Amino acid sequence: MKPHLTNSISSSLKHFSSSTINVLIKPGHILKQARIFSFSDISEYSNLTHDSNPLHFDLKCAKNAGFADIPVPGMLVASLFPRIIASHFPGAVYVKQTLEFKTPVFVRDRIMAEVKANNIRQIKDKYLVKFATTCFKDGDIVVVIDGEATAILPTLAVKQP
Amino acid sequence: MKPHLTNSISSSLKHFSSSTINVLIKPGHILKQARIFSFSDISEYSNLTHDSNPLHFDLKCAKNAGFADIPVPGMLVASLFPRIIASHFPGAVYVKQTLEFKTPVFVRDRIMAEVKANNIRQIKDKYLVKFATTCFKDGDIVVVIDGEATAILPTLAVKQP
Repeated sequence: MKPHLTNSISSSLKHFSSSTINVLIKPGHILKQARIFSFSDISEYSNLTHDSNPLHFDLKCAKNAGFADIPVPGMLVASLFPRIIASHFPGAVYVKQTLEFKTPVFVRDRIMAEVKANNIRQIKDKYLVKFATTCFKDGDIVVVIDGEATAILPTLAVKQP
Repeated sequence: MKPHLTNSISSSLKHFSSSTINVLIKPGHILKQARIFSFSDISEYSNLTHDSNPLHFDLKCAKNAGFADIPVPGMLVASLFPRIIASHFPGAVYVKQTLEFKTPVFVRDRIMAEVKANNIRQIKDKYLVKFATTCFKDGDIVVVIDGEATAILPTLAVKQP
């Protein structure tokens, strides 16, 4: 069974919920967070990034592109990965990210994002960690984003946000 | 000389500035956009993504991580790539993105983002285009983000936003 380190999602590992317990991340550990995006999130993303792709506002445009509904911008969904890493490792520095957008995310879809530590390497007093990064929907079964992230962590101690 | 298709940045190719001219994107074409990020942008990104990494708010944390100043979140800078593509090809669908964060971006840095069409493949009535995606700073010399994006474009006709 894979070890899971979750924040507020899973209640199955409550013994990780106290920040007084010094859990160190190890290869195989998974950190998760769920989110449901709203039309307001899409609008705020557009204002912030100056990206006004009609795909994310105009149902006709979305249908012309082959979608059943208006999709959430992929890079907004992908922001779940650095958010999860930073919430458990404040001060984490993002080095690399690969993203494959496999299935559209629609408003009201419950998205489960997870990062799984695959490789940990100490460099002086910091840690270079490679994570598998995946987002799921439809009961955590359908993969919507797949990829890898590499981050420099100031510590291996997992903070419970 | 590489062909450049720019929006509001370069004035060297003003003949592309009219939307009545039907310019088709070809391998080698480059689309560019500049941006300077503010502390307000970082704050809005944090509110939208729920990412409160102190690296992007606390100078002491940024210095502990080896930065001279507070860095702009990498994924916020990377949002320039889909923004450029969508502004010239409304309705574009993002398929893949790789990102290597090579140098930090600080508030007030002038960032030049460019996407260069490397490969174009027609699939039925749409086009699968692979772009080299790069962000520069310091007079467009220092690479801050390097990577590749793949997008499905509804047309090869370049719109001038």
